[in-house]
Amino acid sequence: MNFKFSERISTLQPSAIREILKVTQDPTVISFAAGNPAPESFPAAEMAEIAAEIFANDAASALQYGVSEGYNPLRTLTAKRMKEKYNVGRTFDDTLITSGGQQVIEMLTKVLVNEGDVILCEMPSFIGALNAFRSYNAKLIGIPMDDDGMDLEVLERTLQTTKNVKFIYTIPTFQNPSGHVMSLARRKKLLELAETYNVLILEDSPYFELRFAGEYVPPIKSLDETGRVIFSGSYSKVLSPGMRIGFCIAHKDLVAKLTVAKQVSDVHTNLFFQMIAARFLERHDLDAHIAKICTLYGSRAQLMCDLIDEKFDGKVRYVRPTGGLFLWCSLPDGYDAMDFCRKTGEKKVVAVPGSSFSVDEHEVTPTFRMNYSLPSEDQIRTGIDLMADVLKDYVK
Amino acid sequence: MNFKFSERISTLQPSAIREILKVTQDPTVISFAAGNPAPESFPAAEMAEIAAEIFANDAASALQYGVSEGYNPLRTLTAKRMKEKYNVGRTFDDTLITSGGQQVIEMLTKVLVNEGDVILCEMPSFIGALNAFRSYNAKLIGIPMDDDGMDLEVLERTLQTTKNVKFIYTIPTFQNPSGHVMSLARRKKLLELAETYNVLILEDSPYFELRFAGEYVPPIKSLDETGRVIFSGSYSKVLSPGMRIGFCIAHKDLVAKLTVAKQVSDVHTNLFFQMIAARFLERHDLDAHIAKICTLYGSRAQLMCDLIDEKFDGKVRYVRPTGGLFLWCSLPDGYDAMDFCRKTGEKKVVAVPGSSFSVDEHEVTPTFRMNYSLPSEDQIRTGIDLMADVLKDYVK
Repeated sequence: MNFKFSERISTLQPSAIREILKVTQDPTVISFAAGNPAPESFPAAEMAEIAAEIFANDAASALQYGVSEGYNPLRTLTAKRMKEKYNVGRTFDDTLITSGGQQVIEMLTKVLVNEGDVILCEMPSFIGALNAFRSYNAKLIGIPMDDDGMDLEVLERTLQTTKNVKFIYTIPTFQNPSGHVMSLARRKKLLELAETYNVLILEDSPYFELRFAGEYVPPIKSLDETGRVIFSGSYSKVLSPGMRIGFCIAHKDLVAKLTVAKQVSDVHTNLFFQMIAARFLERHDLDAHIAKICTLYGSRAQLMCDLIDEKFDGKVRYVRPTGGLFLWCSLPDGYDAMDFCRKTGEKKVVAVPGSSFSVDEHEVTPTFRMNYSLPSEDQIRTGIDLMADVLKDYVK
Repeated sequence: MNFKFSERISTLQPSAIREILKVTQDPTVISFAAGNPAPESFPAAEMAEIAAEIFANDAASALQYGVSEGYNPLRTLTAKRMKEKYNVGRTFDDTLITSGGQQVIEMLTKVLVNEGDVILCEMPSFIGALNAFRSYNAKLIGIPMDDDGMDLEVLERTLQTTKNVKFIYTIPTFQNPSGHVMSLARRKKLLELAETYNVLILEDSPYFELRFAGEYVPPIKSLDETGRVIFSGSYSKVLSPGMRIGFCIAHKDLVAKLTVAKQVSDVHTNLFFQMIAARFLERHDLDAHIAKICTLYGSRAQLMCDLIDEKFDGKVRYVRPTGGLFLWCSLPDGYDAMDFCRKTGEKKVVAVPGSSFSVDEHEVTPTFRMNYSLPSEDQIRTGIDLMADVLKDYVK
């Protein structure tokens, strides 16, 4: 059989990260390539207790069909927490529970973007989002970043000269892969630009609560008084990614359309785990749980940075992260990190080359992404040693 | 804010069934409107035991990210069972785990159908599928049915005269809403027509194992030696719908594209429940469990039919179902079931008017769908009495 695929999907390839992750199924490979939280961060004991209770008392409803909007107590608790703690959500907004943050990105593209419409993205950016945009034949334009986030001058010039821009896609806090945090001043200015040029903002923020240094910067959505910002949140990095629970807080007209998209996509998100998440929020202190995760990631990040300082001989540049999961590294100009990562792979340590996060996947770049949340301290030590060995001959 | 939605989704409305289901949240309303399995059919005790064990021994992997293709033991067990028991799957096929059968339908449309392409559907058909097709601006053409399934003469004329037909959508066994089973002769002929006119077949079969009378008819996919048939299956009606686990067995080239679509859609399906389903299949006798469900539904269907025969005074026609969840009813010609269902709703008993399953949602039809899997015997008795009361004056 020769299948003729739709135009929207025919150019889409499996993501490079997923392919690299398959290599890491070899247990002798040390992976700095993942985007996974530490398994020690899952509140398994609390979840086990709640699950046993649901099976004992509420199995008939937990295993039955639910509504597409999401399990109501979880919607309510999520909205309440995001409002009280982060001032996210206004009376014109509504909350939708999704099958992970990824589903917010995919469905928002589906309901907003016609083929050929433009989405402005940070450069580099999250491959899962870029591929979701590509899967609807959106045209992606990358906006460069510095340590304070998107370059807003380039953004404004692009908005001035580009037709059919549907939204600006940003991960403003602990950006994937760069780790950058957009400054408050830029967040305000970004929102102003979105108002001026009448485009929407998709604020993708799965990491923003994982801060272990520096000062809190409020979400762009907390500044939104008109409904122009769509906030995509996730319980993946603070409870468990395997359960696939995320959420969207956005203007209710938009959430109504997203709910229709959700109905035809998967009807609703796994109801049993929506109930687990809701009861966890009711009974346990999620903030205290997150604080423990931050301590863990802070110490792993510090260890990785200290070892790089000690062993890489100044050959790799990076900025010390203040939160999130990633360290964004760069070889000296002119080097190709794809080639470097292939070489380290042969020595059984893997990172992700920066081209995987590029709007142009064939870009040659000296950058690569290192993850410090998943590997243990021992693995960090061994992995950095192995990388230092490769670097010694690789960069003279 | 005024949002400008994409062309593909702007005409899509929330499904009438979902809106009716909201009315049924009133606990005093007897619902024959659902498509839900009986909660007594969920193997909650077995699942609770497996869940406790996973939390105790495998929480770190069960709560972590998984792969988009699905949890490997579940893929393997599903493929093995479908092959050994139903001869579904060839060496050129592959298996993908999805977030319910609905996701197979949505993603298949995404990867195959360009805007304006044609999908041929049974008339009437499952609203969730029709809306998924509509959400990609597919053009739907309905093919009438008789008791043996699709009218293949009309189908062939349509194939002869219609351009850009991508696939034929069929629920061949215990069709939703009609309950019809396509005869084996028609299944063979349908496959021949698909070969002749070079179109694919989406065989949606969430109910086919729920037979309580009559003779087994093999899936169309079991006859497929070329990879032209995509089989969409589901654990919703045999284990639990709330967990959202379905599967697709199709040619591996197609499954590869669907896997890319799955990556950008929700990354993967809830991993914990994939593990529960796999261990259930390993340790328990799913066939015996399904046999119990069939006995339950058979007796509820018989009760509903017997009471209709006794109390509806011949005013409602129907065919005794041999499996599945639904009884397809018809008022005398000229009556509008939408109006009738509104009237019964006022008396606190609800069914779904046939127009909800039509390619043309504004069609006036005397048909309506009754569900017998969810209501208890008492509810069936009371609900049929209430309907009989309405009928008495409604049809003279």
